[in-house]
Amino acid sequence: MAKELKELTKRSEDYSQWYLDLVLKADLAENSAVRGCMVIKPYGYAIWEKVQRQLDDMFKETGHVNAYFPLFIPKSFLSKEADHVEGFAKECAVVTHYRLKNDPDGKGVVVDPEAKLEEELIVRPTSETIIWNTYRGWIQSYRDLPILCNQWANVVRWEMRTRLFLRTAEFLWQEGHTAHATKDEAEIEARKMLDVYAEFAENHMALPVIKGVKSANERFAGAVETYTIEAMMQDGKALQSGTSHFLGQNFAKAFDVKFTDKDGKQDYVWATSWGVSTRLIGALIMAHSDDNGLVLPPKLAPYQVVIVPIYRSAEQLAEIDTKVAGIVTALKNLGISVKYDNADNKKPGWKFSEYELKGVPVRLAMGGRDLENNTIEVARRDTLTKETVSCDNIDVYIKNLLNDIQENIYKKALDTRTSRTISVDTYEEFKEKIETGVFIMAHWDGTSETEEKIKAETKATIRCIPLDGDKTPGKCMVTGNPSAQRVVFAKAY
Amino acid sequence: MAKELKELTKRSEDYSQWYLDLVLKADLAENSAVRGCMVIKPYGYAIWEKVQRQLDDMFKETGHVNAYFPLFIPKSFLSKEADHVEGFAKECAVVTHYRLKNDPDGKGVVVDPEAKLEEELIVRPTSETIIWNTYRGWIQSYRDLPILCNQWANVVRWEMRTRLFLRTAEFLWQEGHTAHATKDEAEIEARKMLDVYAEFAENHMALPVIKGVKSANERFAGAVETYTIEAMMQDGKALQSGTSHFLGQNFAKAFDVKFTDKDGKQDYVWATSWGVSTRLIGALIMAHSDDNGLVLPPKLAPYQVVIVPIYRSAEQLAEIDTKVAGIVTALKNLGISVKYDNADNKKPGWKFSEYELKGVPVRLAMGGRDLENNTIEVARRDTLTKETVSCDNIDVYIKNLLNDIQENIYKKALDTRTSRTISVDTYEEFKEKIETGVFIMAHWDGTSETEEKIKAETKATIRCIPLDGDKTPGKCMVTGNPSAQRVVFAKAY
Repeated sequence: MAKELKELTKRSEDYSQWYLDLVLKADLAENSAVRGCMVIKPYGYAIWEKVQRQLDDMFKETGHVNAYFPLFIPKSFLSKEADHVEGFAKECAVVTHYRLKNDPDGKGVVVDPEAKLEEELIVRPTSETIIWNTYRGWIQSYRDLPILCNQWANVVRWEMRTRLFLRTAEFLWQEGHTAHATKDEAEIEARKMLDVYAEFAENHMALPVIKGVKSANERFAGAVETYTIEAMMQDGKALQSGTSHFLGQNFAKAFDVKFTDKDGKQDYVWATSWGVSTRLIGALIMAHSDDNGLVLPPKLAPYQVVIVPIYRSAEQLAEIDTKVAGIVTALKNLGISVKYDNADNKKPGWKFSEYELKGVPVRLAMGGRDLENNTIEVARRDTLTKETVSCDNIDVYIKNLLNDIQENIYKKALDTRTSRTISVDTYEEFKEKIETGVFIMAHWDGTSETEEKIKAETKATIRCIPLDGDKTPGKCMVTGNPSAQRVVFAKAY
Repeated sequence: MAKELKELTKRSEDYSQWYLDLVLKADLAENSAVRGCMVIKPYGYAIWEKVQRQLDDMFKETGHVNAYFPLFIPKSFLSKEADHVEGFAKECAVVTHYRLKNDPDGKGVVVDPEAKLEEELIVRPTSETIIWNTYRGWIQSYRDLPILCNQWANVVRWEMRTRLFLRTAEFLWQEGHTAHATKDEAEIEARKMLDVYAEFAENHMALPVIKGVKSANERFAGAVETYTIEAMMQDGKALQSGTSHFLGQNFAKAFDVKFTDKDGKQDYVWATSWGVSTRLIGALIMAHSDDNGLVLPPKLAPYQVVIVPIYRSAEQLAEIDTKVAGIVTALKNLGISVKYDNADNKKPGWKFSEYELKGVPVRLAMGGRDLENNTIEVARRDTLTKETVSCDNIDVYIKNLLNDIQENIYKKALDTRTSRTISVDTYEEFKEKIETGVFIMAHWDGTSETEEKIKAETKATIRCIPLDGDKTPGKCMVTGNPSAQRVVFAKAY
């Protein structure tokens, strides 16, 4: 029965169902009683904590500080920036009252009509408006700049079609909001944070990403330029994994935030914002996992090593306990997180498949023969291979192995992307190939019309105009008009 | 001008205004455009991060894990536990719609009447209901217990009279929610978390607290027993600093959460919940600070040491820079957080008063004579005393000094509380003394009627029935009826 419970739909049969099975069965998250809102379960949240800790360190190393701004935004704020309201008013939770009262007709409670707010409040879908309204009070002179704030928070967007981690009505994220004296400085900041995100994705999530610029259609509502990192999932679809926006003076103008420069002249302040969310956990799952369960890169695994004893008697278990205690200490001394599971109400086979499902990078098993031989069985989650090694210097061995696994998971994802990225020059070929789950590098004339036509006919979007790589000009595959460089097309989550 | 900006109202003149001045001028927090919601500024948030990190470590050491539950609670959930709805329905933010649309009569946006929710959602004032509704799916058997979850989150209570940190409509907190197979185990858990809170308050916040039980009037809505830690502020008022609730089977019954025990019998699950909030920062400020600004205990100070150079020339500054660099490294190697402020646009005097205002525990200053003599000036924030010491072994000297400061701040707060805690036996004396800002240990007959009479006539409440200390019975100071032990009365924040 335990085995059936853990069985997943195969990726090859139904990729979407495989993903959902995995999120539920690996105890990462589940749907809640509130439509579109998820419960992040302890194992899923432990991954988020690893993500948070690492990103937070990186933000602080680049000079940022954390702060906290209100959950609620006065309705009128949303409409101060013209594009912003178009982007966010359509999907927001609106607070209209501040009290309930007993239902006069029976039991239960009803909204008290007398407790109606004068102005409705929006649950933040993103915080540019409330933050720039606050920054007005913080900024008078160039001496007050730059402001480099980040916030870890929950936000709400009333999505109609939701999927655990990937798209939920409420999600957790960080949002950086910076204010600068010059356009240059703000542009550099927006690019710097894109690099931070790319470094995090590649070095910690083991997720190769393409850094690029969004087309006008896909730009953040209120931004002058949106930078993005785009990753490929195992089905060849793209997942936007982080964005960094150069906001120009749009929000400063909307909220009248001016400063006096060194020469005594007044100007509007320049802005950026940037964010990543719990969506990253969806990316992590979809990029690396397999039909047996999660595959977690060691740097983000809640625990990196699990040790399972295999014993025939209480005496033998006691001997193994003693032997393992030394190994646990040695591993911890090298900064490796480890769990020793000697619980006696589950069999080793059950534990093996459990930790496979949960994506623990390395599983060690010790039995009677290992005790005699001073050996231990080492199983890698990423390759599903096993070997028996000496217990001497096992700590250093495991440390190196974890590095290998981290690299291998990255390499595998990179190989997948390389093998599924193609260049296409005709729209006919594009329409055929895009159905096979690939990133297509193609020329585009730079217009929204052409982009919309392609999207309408193929459901593929321009994921980004890459910052690095081939910049050879050419001709748009649809219109034949000039194209500055190939851009990345894909279907996307 | 800088000096005036930093000047605070004196505590002796107007304690409330002093507090507000300090919160604003030390850049801890400010009011936002949304009534009752605060902006936590970077310096204030940095203190909260220290609080979070420490508490989170302590929760994990005691076996807890973090998770995340939805922001929204269906309205019907609130009324499932009879006492709970009475306590929380009166002050909650209600989401009734999920979309805005362009105002047909002009610019701006209005609520779209067609996007009305079938059931209104409440922004969580606390999460017992949504969590116990979730736990129903997690618990079948005794093997699924205990569940030891904590959540770091924002909550909203529509308070009419708010004060930065102490009482705000939105605040940040952690809420632990545990599920147990037996009454005993749940009671032990509730007491254990009270001890964790008390240890944190005393050892990290340098805040002596009284551990006790709340009277029925002051109990959490839905709890069988509420445990509390109560601290004294410098005006002699009490501040409830953390609570831990034994919830019995109330929420399990309300949400039908049963489990099968080892003998195959079904029973409702036993529960606790416990929380502390950003209110702790208000306590920290009010307990220790003085007319010059914040006084922060070293364990929670965003930086523990600031170093200010005093120089007459660029050459001299360069020499000081070099000398200080070695000290900074030595301090950091001992785990001490340090900021070297050699910014040239502010004078040393300005910096001194700035860091005094911000409560940095130790300020070091180095000038030309110090260079010659291999000395440095050491100023303590808690005692406002200075001395000149040798640079040799300055790291160890500072480490010991920080320990001394931590202890001294605690001792000072304890002395204040001791000198302002009195025993009283008659209600006449009680009414007179309670106006002087004291904790009064008095006998009470255990009835809500007597407690309410005292509150109505004096504004003092029973802060707690202490768990430790004198348990001698006596007679109620109001009714003369028997009293099991003295309880703590005070006016409270």
